[in-house]
Amino acid sequence: MKEDIPYKIYLSEEEMPTQWYNVRADMKKKPEPLLNPQTGKPFTHAELEPIFCKELVAQELDDQTKWFDIPEEVLNFYKMFRPSPLVHAKFLEKALDTPAKIFYKFEGNNTSGSHKLNSAIAQAYYAKKQGLKGVTTETGAGQWGTALSMACQHFGLDLKVYMVKCSYEQKPFRREVIRTFGASIVPSPSDTTEVGRKILAEHPGTTGSLGCAISEAVEAAVNNEGYRYELGSVLNQVLLHQTIIGLETQKALQKYNIKPDILIACTGGGSNLGGFATPFLGEMLRGEANYKIIGAEPASCPSFTRGKFAYDYCDTGMICPLAKMYTVGSQFIPSASHAGGLRFHGMSPVLSELYHQGLFEARAYEQTAIFEAAEIFARAEGTLPAPESSHAIRAAIDEALKCKETGEEKVIVFNLSGTGYFDLYAYKAFNDGTMGDYVPTDEEINTALERLPKI
Amino acid sequence: MKEDIPYKIYLSEEEMPTQWYNVRADMKKKPEPLLNPQTGKPFTHAELEPIFCKELVAQELDDQTKWFDIPEEVLNFYKMFRPSPLVHAKFLEKALDTPAKIFYKFEGNNTSGSHKLNSAIAQAYYAKKQGLKGVTTETGAGQWGTALSMACQHFGLDLKVYMVKCSYEQKPFRREVIRTFGASIVPSPSDTTEVGRKILAEHPGTTGSLGCAISEAVEAAVNNEGYRYELGSVLNQVLLHQTIIGLETQKALQKYNIKPDILIACTGGGSNLGGFATPFLGEMLRGEANYKIIGAEPASCPSFTRGKFAYDYCDTGMICPLAKMYTVGSQFIPSASHAGGLRFHGMSPVLSELYHQGLFEARAYEQTAIFEAAEIFARAEGTLPAPESSHAIRAAIDEALKCKETGEEKVIVFNLSGTGYFDLYAYKAFNDGTMGDYVPTDEEINTALERLPKI
Repeated sequence: MKEDIPYKIYLSEEEMPTQWYNVRADMKKKPEPLLNPQTGKPFTHAELEPIFCKELVAQELDDQTKWFDIPEEVLNFYKMFRPSPLVHAKFLEKALDTPAKIFYKFEGNNTSGSHKLNSAIAQAYYAKKQGLKGVTTETGAGQWGTALSMACQHFGLDLKVYMVKCSYEQKPFRREVIRTFGASIVPSPSDTTEVGRKILAEHPGTTGSLGCAISEAVEAAVNNEGYRYELGSVLNQVLLHQTIIGLETQKALQKYNIKPDILIACTGGGSNLGGFATPFLGEMLRGEANYKIIGAEPASCPSFTRGKFAYDYCDTGMICPLAKMYTVGSQFIPSASHAGGLRFHGMSPVLSELYHQGLFEARAYEQTAIFEAAEIFARAEGTLPAPESSHAIRAAIDEALKCKETGEEKVIVFNLSGTGYFDLYAYKAFNDGTMGDYVPTDEEINTALERLPKI
Repeated sequence: MKEDIPYKIYLSEEEMPTQWYNVRADMKKKPEPLLNPQTGKPFTHAELEPIFCKELVAQELDDQTKWFDIPEEVLNFYKMFRPSPLVHAKFLEKALDTPAKIFYKFEGNNTSGSHKLNSAIAQAYYAKKQGLKGVTTETGAGQWGTALSMACQHFGLDLKVYMVKCSYEQKPFRREVIRTFGASIVPSPSDTTEVGRKILAEHPGTTGSLGCAISEAVEAAVNNEGYRYELGSVLNQVLLHQTIIGLETQKALQKYNIKPDILIACTGGGSNLGGFATPFLGEMLRGEANYKIIGAEPASCPSFTRGKFAYDYCDTGMICPLAKMYTVGSQFIPSASHAGGLRFHGMSPVLSELYHQGLFEARAYEQTAIFEAAEIFARAEGTLPAPESSHAIRAAIDEALKCKETGEEKVIVFNLSGTGYFDLYAYKAFNDGTMGDYVPTDEEINTALERLPKI
């Protein structure tokens, strides 16, 4: 490690990667294909193209091409908020009194407040290129909806957002940001779609889930001429776009000769860990390096640590593709935990396959432990983190404290994927001491797993 | 201007200025001194030291020393969020279809959300150095209170915040950020101070003002052993610390050979325009350059454009120093306009004197015009601006549109002092079309000006 590392490492705009990395190309055992729930067979391009943009379908189904060029219009937009800094967390090291060296990639310095903008602008670009009128989407915590509203505004596309009801209520200000960028937004489940009305009838009083909202947004896309559906996580295409995070991190580490031992990101649907870690997992797959990689998930929706590796629906309404993934079951409705962005029942098929192959480990954390970590981090490093990202902070702090016990000078690098400026209800509950921990019982999980499709 | 200007110009940490600039040293005609309301004579160091930290008093009263070294502890903290980028607003230029070149210095990439942290960390440092237990302060929109809570947390100081009541109610989430950083906070006027109880009795139902909150915070500092009062604007010391903005801007412009024609910042108490523009005003005072400099203020509290250049109290309670400044009168209570941070009745004595000497101009803007500019900016540049900063955006857009008419390629540089993530009630009103404009009548202003002290 060089001696003269600045507090924040910024790459120059010229150093920004110009291609996304597709880890599937380096996997000997590829992820299982998406299945069409109507035929039980792998989805074809033609079957997916009524739902997703044509070029995004091509990216989704391509497990051979290792590098995809980032279009110039997307690179230009990236320069609004990229390259993002790799920060040496020296104030956190001091607060923890640890010999570990801690770095974090900070993706929160843009108005969407998170890494979601990396894929949003790419997806909006392909929709525009295809000549569409607009797109539909769901949003959980609100970061994805905000990001896509910014991206659609940039290209002059219409956007309809279905926002998970508990987030819609807990984060009224998110809605206003999305409206400021010109999109329309409704709470999900809503009575504007067939699937929404069905879910409302079966589960009156539900606070919603990403799975429900996805079902509604897909229905709205398929039923509106000139629209397609776009999703902020789980999909292969999203992980592809998000690799800009890990690729920049690799370049910044190389620039200062920093050799990471441990790499950490949070996991909900996988966009965070996938974007941050797959370039490093690629090094491992090619036998070039070895890292300890940790996915940090919420104990309230523990797909890696308590789920099953099986084919499941990507949505509650069971109209979306079937994916082979770690899942707690598409009928699992997580409690109204505040870390809204990690409330998805399943997990990226790519990450699921890599996890199944033993390339990284996963840990589940309870909510109060997450906010304790968030407070320690905010007070030391001066940035109020998103609850989602705070799962990664918790894991990083735990690893740094282990180093304190053993005296090891390990290098820990984590992804700080977003800020907590729209999560102040949750911080209020934590400050007031009224925050609870929500861990599903074995019975709840087993009940949901019993309803997995028989494939 | 060089050809290869990046979208965001980042100075390296080594290029960050290591001294603050005191424009008073370059002024032939100095600002008039602060007067003690009890004696009617200029304040001495000994008289001010029970209110402010000793070294801050020295900075406040020193109109001879041109450069002050930035302490190492402050420079280290600055590196958490500085150097801040100078952004080439090429997407805004395109949206306006203007031949003008627009740049903005962006101070919002830190959790306090604004430039206020530049002075907060300096003031907390001097309080710690003096061995104090803690400090008190007021906050309007909440940026200053947040910034000082972060700074006090860093040095382990206690902090009591008096928050202008209308902001306390409109910005509940600001309170939670401040609490997360460990400070205590009450709405002002409150019943915890004598002056607060007096104001509540005289003006029941008042939504508060910065002037009221200052009175309360000063009383709390003077009545608590081991405490001093700290203020986020107006004072000479604050402008001094904030010059890091203008000095970095000068360096970034020089690095790419960019020659500004027009420089713009918003004005409430003066920390924004003072920090951004005094290094450039210094060049003008020394005869080295000439710029068109614009201070953009709210029509709801128009101290430059409709106030009087006279001695006045800095607070509503009339216990603070008398300053020679542009003022609409310490008894003027501005309407509950959303641009909370610009609700101060007076103006920095340094800026007042420079304005009186004709070195820059001022413009007043109504609220809906501000939010129109904010929306244009957000949609083009991808950053949701603070209402305060949007006054500067409005002026910059107006100047750029003039260039469109005349075909001139002027270079416009403005200070984007903060983000609007805690101003979503205001954005909601704008999105809903329910936002009003609040312009005081001549009678209201004259009534307040009649109550100016006779000096």
